[in-house]
Amino acid sequence: MDLATLIGFLLGVGIIVAALFTSGDIMMFVDVPSLLIVFGGTFGVTLMRVPLGDFLRSFAIAGKAFMNKLDKPDVLIEEGVRLADIARKNGLLALENETIENPFMKKGINFCVDGHEPEFVRKILSQEIDQMVARNEIGQDTWKGVGDLAPAMGMIGTLVGLVQMLANMSDPASIGPAMAIALLTTLYGALIANVFALPMVDKLAKVLHYERTNRELIVETIAGIQEGVNPKVLESLLNSYISEKKRNTDS
Amino acid sequence: MDLATLIGFLLGVGIIVAALFTSGDIMMFVDVPSLLIVFGGTFGVTLMRVPLGDFLRSFAIAGKAFMNKLDKPDVLIEEGVRLADIARKNGLLALENETIENPFMKKGINFCVDGHEPEFVRKILSQEIDQMVARNEIGQDTWKGVGDLAPAMGMIGTLVGLVQMLANMSDPASIGPAMAIALLTTLYGALIANVFALPMVDKLAKVLHYERTNRELIVETIAGIQEGVNPKVLESLLNSYISEKKRNTDS
Amino acid sequence: MDLATLIGFLLGVGIIVAALFTSGDIMMFVDVPSLLIVFGGTFGVTLMRVPLGDFLRSFAIAGKAFMNKLDKPDVLIEEGVRLADIARKNGLLALENETIENPFMKKGINFCVDGHEPEFVRKILSQEIDQMVARNEIGQDTWKGVGDLAPAMGMIGTLVGLVQMLANMSDPASIGPAMAIALLTTLYGALIANVFALPMVDKLAKVLHYERTNRELIVETIAGIQEGVNPKVLESLLNSYISEKKRNTDS
Amino acid sequence: MDLATLIGFLLGVGIIVAALFTSGDIMMFVDVPSLLIVFGGTFGVTLMRVPLGDFLRSFAIAGKAFMNKLDKPDVLIEEGVRLADIARKNGLLALENETIENPFMKKGINFCVDGHEPEFVRKILSQEIDQMVARNEIGQDTWKGVGDLAPAMGMIGTLVGLVQMLANMSDPASIGPAMAIALLTTLYGALIANVFALPMVDKLAKVLHYERTNRELIVETIAGIQEGVNPKVLESLLNSYISEKKRNTDS
Amino acid sequence: MDLATLIGFLLGVGIIVAALFTSGDIMMFVDVPSLLIVFGGTFGVTLMRVPLGDFLRSFAIAGKAFMNKLDKPDVLIEEGVRLADIARKNGLLALENETIENPFMKKGINFCVDGHEPEFVRKILSQEIDQMVARNEIGQDTWKGVGDLAPAMGMIGTLVGLVQMLANMSDPASIGPAMAIALLTTLYGALIANVFALPMVDKLAKVLHYERTNRELIVETIAGIQEGVNPKVLESLLNSYISEKKRNTDS
Repeated sequence: MDLATLIGFLLGVGIIVAALFTSGDIMMFVDVPSLLIVFGGTFGVTLMRVPLGDFLRSFAIAGKAFMNKLDKPDVLIEEGVRLADIARKNGLLALENETIENPFMKKGINFCVDGHEPEFVRKILSQEIDQMVARNEIGQDTWKGVGDLAPAMGMIGTLVGLVQMLANMSDPASIGPAMAIALLTTLYGALIANVFALPMVDKLAKVLHYERTNRELIVETIAGIQEGVNPKVLESLLNSYISEKKRNTDS
Repeated sequence: MDLATLIGFLLGVGIIVAALFTSGDIMMFVDVPSLLIVFGGTFGVTLMRVPLGDFLRSFAIAGKAFMNKLDKPDVLIEEGVRLADIARKNGLLALENETIENPFMKKGINFCVDGHEPEFVRKILSQEIDQMVARNEIGQDTWKGVGDLAPAMGMIGTLVGLVQMLANMSDPASIGPAMAIALLTTLYGALIANVFALPMVDKLAKVLHYERTNRELIVETIAGIQEGVNPKVLESLLNSYISEKKRNTDS
Repeated sequence: MDLATLIGFLLGVGIIVAALFTSGDIMMFVDVPSLLIVFGGTFGVTLMRVPLGDFLRSFAIAGKAFMNKLDKPDVLIEEGVRLADIARKNGLLALENETIENPFMKKGINFCVDGHEPEFVRKILSQEIDQMVARNEIGQDTWKGVGDLAPAMGMIGTLVGLVQMLANMSDPASIGPAMAIALLTTLYGALIANVFALPMVDKLAKVLHYERTNRELIVETIAGIQEGVNPKVLESLLNSYISEKKRNTDS
Repeated sequence: MDLATLIGFLLGVGIIVAALFTSGDIMMFVDVPSLLIVFGGTFGVTLMRVPLGDFLRSFAIAGKAFMNKLDKPDVLIEEGVRLADIARKNGLLALENETIENPFMKKGINFCVDGHEPEFVRKILSQEIDQMVARNEIGQDTWKGVGDLAPAMGMIGTLVGLVQMLANMSDPASIGPAMAIALLTTLYGALIANVFALPMVDKLAKVLHYERTNRELIVETIAGIQEGVNPKVLESLLNSYISEKKRNTDS
Repeated sequence: MDLATLIGFLLGVGIIVAALFTSGDIMMFVDVPSLLIVFGGTFGVTLMRVPLGDFLRSFAIAGKAFMNKLDKPDVLIEEGVRLADIARKNGLLALENETIENPFMKKGINFCVDGHEPEFVRKILSQEIDQMVARNEIGQDTWKGVGDLAPAMGMIGTLVGLVQMLANMSDPASIGPAMAIALLTTLYGALIANVFALPMVDKLAKVLHYERTNRELIVETIAGIQEGVNPKVLESLLNSYISEKKRNTDS
């Protein structure tokens, strides 16, 4: 679980909510019709701009920004070197009973144990990486759209509120509060975009980058194991994927 | 028919119209000269920026965002494998009497039955895909232009309204309503762009993407049938085009 | 002559002028110093940002958006096939007395009649296309600059007007009209950019695209004629450049 | 000297200054603290964003937009053909006493006279072109930064002025003039960006483009002279670098 | 230490602080809740959009904009030529006792002395350059995010302040000061972005560019030393990396 995303989100929201409380009455910032325009409008137009299937999948992908659990590359390398060692000593079939945490590595090792050709294994695994990247990029695009739409719906809501206020200026005392409510949709739109949707898109892009690097590392590991590369050589090859500080130097 | 586009559009419009009704009098948001400036201006300038032929074609393309009916890739693969099976058992001519739903696949199969060279069939079909992509991208560009122009025409209308109002400030009571009307063009422009034109461009781009993938799948299928590829091998080849979940695993 | 550009321009301008008349007094929208700031400033700074030669040429290029006369590709193909037929029957020299409407095709045929090498003819013609593209892109860039500058000069004019107004607020009755005049420059800038310069840039880009395609079609035709390609084969080759609907199917 | 840049700059500035005078008192637009914020702030932050060496060099490069003197390509070609003629008749050494105006061509000819290899001469000259391009692009980037920063510093200055004004609203008569002064920084920022920095960046980019084309023409000329290409052939080769109208047809 | 960054930063900040003092009371610009919203909100959301490790590393990278110490390329070339001279006369092992200031060159020379293959040395060093570039670009991206977020949080803070003010307009005397405070968050956001984060990103990009060029120069130097290239030839090769003015001509 990526605590930074959750802590950052709670911190951002918390500070803004605290600022709202300084006015004494936080209910001043809650207006149901305004919430409906911004949330409902953004929801509806997002449904319009992406196919239904992509829309539904984007929620599962959003979860990744908060809940992803990335394996550390040095742990993956250590594990890969261990398996290469076993395969070299006792043959590929000896890997059948090994416990492998990472499901993608597990799947790759299973292909090896089943006796598939190295070329076939690499192709199937690479293709799974491509499918994962495509799925994630569609999800990012959907949330990027939310980050563009929410401020636009906020502006539309404010324009609606201003027109209503300006057309009925008979009671001067109501002008201020009416304008306050008109501004709420702009505030909601800015919050959805800047405190939720856009930072999530950035986090998803980075999570995807690291996940992809991990999986490419695993494809390289599996290929090395199948070709019977010396575990020491495999380790130094895999280490070239990661920065010097993160390398597991004692092995 | 892509229900998401229609539902999304109705939801977005519905929520905003509902918000307008909360003011009691929705006619406050209807002003014929303002509608003329934004719709007429956007229409006229769009006519100026694209050639007449492209302009007319863009309406047919817009229909696709609401009415497209994309075949599912797994259904196409199943159909292709079935045809490959028949061709392998009874020869290419046996495909002549088969009922084929997808018109692009129908056209390709007809080329096979007519005895054209595989190279020629692939070239003609690929070229039809290119023509479809080019036609759609010109349509998307036209609607993208509408999405850029409408807010600009809205701002021009608001400036016109503000100048009129400011030059005649003798009656203070008329200032509010005059400014309300001046803001209407900005509201119209924002609505056209954000609730209609730009989401439609996004949807069209995605529909085009999936349609193109489908057609490339069909080109691959036809090529496989002509070359007499084993139906099982053809199926696994075609499956590599689509994500694991969507694969038809029982066949 | 591309009527769409002129009709679109007149429609856009007409609708806005009609909207100005609704206020009863259109002179309210005419202010000579404001016109000077926006038109003169945009003119001066454009002179600053592009070399003098490019500046002068951009006016001739602008004319193309309104006055271009593009040959239809199917007419060019028909003409090319007719010439190929003559050349095949009576030799290249027989083309000397043919009337050829399109000046670029005329020039290419003249090179053939003069007995130049196919390689040389293609190089000279391709180079003329490159020169035309470069000339047009410089013109588009100049008008794109106008479309960026005019709103900026409009904003500068409005700021100047606002400072003048705010520094002299002794007479409250003059505030409204002074602010109306201050807003005029912003209105002028928005009109120049959105109703003239930017749509013209888009139209020029599209005209250039179609003109380029036509000329590449002609280069292909000339090459085919020189190589003595069968007119039927040449026709099907050239048809692959254009969409199915536009093909001249009866020939 | 590129008169267009100077005339354009004076025209743009002149028109705006004339507009300021229409208010009777131009001193209303001069406020020393506002000038300090915009000019000083832009200067300071530019120093922060570019290394010191790049910063100093950018002033020399700015001079080019006003003072560059580009040779006309047809004159360079005529000169090159003349030199090629001499070299062909009397040998490369005969070029030693020729007067050559263009310093880059002079340098290249000197390399020839000194007997360096064609490959070496081309490499050294190409490398000097790359260095010139890199130097100019760094200068353009610095002024592009000024064009982005000045409006931002203008907005910061206006915010500072507005906060000061709003916090001291006891004297209603001072509100207008205070707000006028607050707006001055925005006006200064817009002027620096749109009437000076950004058009200069555009002009520099175009000057660089033409200068680069000229130098590539010269490299081609020198290579032709060294290889002893026939002057007539060299001329037609060089003419392919420039548009038809600019060619010196009588030679 | 890059004085330009520090001087520029102090100049920019100093001028703005001086402008604040002209109002007599600088405390008017300090509001703790506003500071909390902008700084805390930007901090929290940045934590949300980048992984925790990248977040922490970005501070170390920011230090580079103020404290980097780049070696001058001509000094590096001089040093490299000196070492090449020693290696040519006394063998690679003679380099073991040389004092080498630049740590990257030191590391490369150590690889040579240890007898590694040229191919291996180049690969390891190139890979270290790639790691440095990737690390720096992640840091730049984090600060670029701060530069985008701070104005957004500033706008959110201003909207919150405006809503609070408009909802409580009973005391007219409090409107001005309340609005002044509402504007402070926009001012803070603009300052963070334009006077700190964005210029720093630009400086970091330029420092990275020069550092990368230096290291590529060193890789080339090490390769030349290992291959026993003549020091004179090596010098002229290395000089082609830098501009003519910076070359050390007397050596």
